[in-house]
Amino acid sequence: MAVYTDVTEPQLAAFLARYDLGALSSYKGIAEGVENSNFLLRTTTGTFILTLYEKRVDRGDLPFFVGLMEHLAERGLSCPLPVHDREGNTLGELAGRPAAIFTFLDGMWTRRPSPENCRALGGALARMHEAAASFPLTRRNGLSPQDWRPLYESCGGGGDTVEPGLSAEIEADLADLEARWPTDLPSGIIHADLFPDNVFFLAGELSGLIDFYFACTDLLAYDLAITLCAWCFEPDGSYNVTKGRALIAGYADVRRLQPAEYRSLPLLCRGASMRFLLTRLYDWLNVPDDSFVTKKDPREYLKKLRFHRSIRDTAEYGLEAARVTKGRA
Amino acid sequence: MAVYTDVTEPQLAAFLARYDLGALSSYKGIAEGVENSNFLLRTTTGTFILTLYEKRVDRGDLPFFVGLMEHLAERGLSCPLPVHDREGNTLGELAGRPAAIFTFLDGMWTRRPSPENCRALGGALARMHEAAASFPLTRRNGLSPQDWRPLYESCGGGGDTVEPGLSAEIEADLADLEARWPTDLPSGIIHADLFPDNVFFLAGELSGLIDFYFACTDLLAYDLAITLCAWCFEPDGSYNVTKGRALIAGYADVRRLQPAEYRSLPLLCRGASMRFLLTRLYDWLNVPDDSFVTKKDPREYLKKLRFHRSIRDTAEYGLEAARVTKGRA
Repeated sequence: MAVYTDVTEPQLAAFLARYDLGALSSYKGIAEGVENSNFLLRTTTGTFILTLYEKRVDRGDLPFFVGLMEHLAERGLSCPLPVHDREGNTLGELAGRPAAIFTFLDGMWTRRPSPENCRALGGALARMHEAAASFPLTRRNGLSPQDWRPLYESCGGGGDTVEPGLSAEIEADLADLEARWPTDLPSGIIHADLFPDNVFFLAGELSGLIDFYFACTDLLAYDLAITLCAWCFEPDGSYNVTKGRALIAGYADVRRLQPAEYRSLPLLCRGASMRFLLTRLYDWLNVPDDSFVTKKDPREYLKKLRFHRSIRDTAEYGLEAARVTKGRA
Repeated sequence: MAVYTDVTEPQLAAFLARYDLGALSSYKGIAEGVENSNFLLRTTTGTFILTLYEKRVDRGDLPFFVGLMEHLAERGLSCPLPVHDREGNTLGELAGRPAAIFTFLDGMWTRRPSPENCRALGGALARMHEAAASFPLTRRNGLSPQDWRPLYESCGGGGDTVEPGLSAEIEADLADLEARWPTDLPSGIIHADLFPDNVFFLAGELSGLIDFYFACTDLLAYDLAITLCAWCFEPDGSYNVTKGRALIAGYADVRRLQPAEYRSLPLLCRGASMRFLLTRLYDWLNVPDDSFVTKKDPREYLKKLRFHRSIRDTAEYGLEAARVTKGRA
């Protein structure tokens, strides 16, 4: 949950006066997003989301994030559409923070994804990759493989306090991932954080993607790997092959995976697990317990890392290569 | 902010199926209330508030709270109206918690109340007292003067860790309040927690009162005293006589204060300050720092207690007795 910055009514009314959205009816801080403060805003013309960007978000990245959402929404992807003020701006300032207003998306995130959810999600992810291909801006992934080692080092060897031997295990994997990370796969703009709470469903249909604040330029199949790690494991840590197959097939039905992408998937999944293991480990060791941020157990991603390390062939994820590389056919 | 219990879509859809409110469109946890979990609920027929009652609320009190809101709303007071399911129930169970759905009130709480806000609030408080007079249920105030000493004792002398000498100061005041607390003033149902975040305004007009979960049977003028303490002091701790005058006059314009109520106001204000000083002190000493609950500084109410102790005559609050006891005239 996240409301870091309070907003007074006079401040918000003055901000809203720049838009053609009518008069303010109500606003309530909502428990959505962990990086920013979000409010559900009701005006005499409709319901909107107001986002205040907190200091964890680099102001220089905002035109990329907000521009990407507008680009995707204009191309038919269901995601929050930034609302323009009368001067055409999508970014303003409110309560000392950069701020933007977005259209409201109906739908609920699913706490227990079904294989059908995973298939729909795979398709939406591929459509996002295709729609983003024409977006003119780029953004370096601040959590790419080259950033993992410095992040690990900033944990100061604290890994072993979480699980004995963890530091050595991370170091071995880091060296292997650095040596073998692919550089010749198709790249483009990826979501990079497509966890279940960032995907809405309504009446069984996928109704929208939200929270593009980790979006960046990177390998497209790495985004699929991140998503697989986030959606296709059960609460007990076991891989659900039915969900994995559905996710990858849903993706490949829209955007055909190249053979090299297919072959790299186990390595990309190890990388995705390493990325979330390290950020969670860092937060586990460094975020104070009385913080607003709910700390997530890094061991969830350690388990996933070990699972992906055990994979010898992408087919073990549940899908035949022929099926994927040939696409829908 | 408060979302203690998460709700899954299947759970909520099953709960909603008992009502004639259409299908679920979205639900988001909101930062409102500190005792319960609240969600802003959108269905195909409108917007509602869903409340899950957490363990701090006694289940046996729920018919009183929910019945009171229905009673008040039916008599024209703007407050959340509990929605009946098809069997006529206003209380159900969701995610293992008692739960209720309420109509949504437009409006915003004011972070900086104006004298006009205070005048409108005084009138609304008096109208609430009058409308509640015909409500058939009663509820003992669990934070009445007889509860203050046990609450203080449960702080285990920790007052001096907050401010040296605080324990002796509280003990002297407690003894005085216990000896002099009035018993012959008009009583009825009071809100007992009418802080600014429980009062909504829209376009300068008071649009609703919320959060009746401290409502109980007690002295009506004590509710005015609680409200005065919550609304008529500036952030620096100084009493704002213009706001105090507006609040009391707004109240007396609707419900005439009896001379004994008027004379007792300084004592009642001392009591109100003691009540919030003690609950804040208890939380300060006992609630862990990593709790969801934001702890409020007890010294704010210590300052108010000292101010009210210095008052020799109710007129010092900014209003002539003649004006109040004669009412609007």
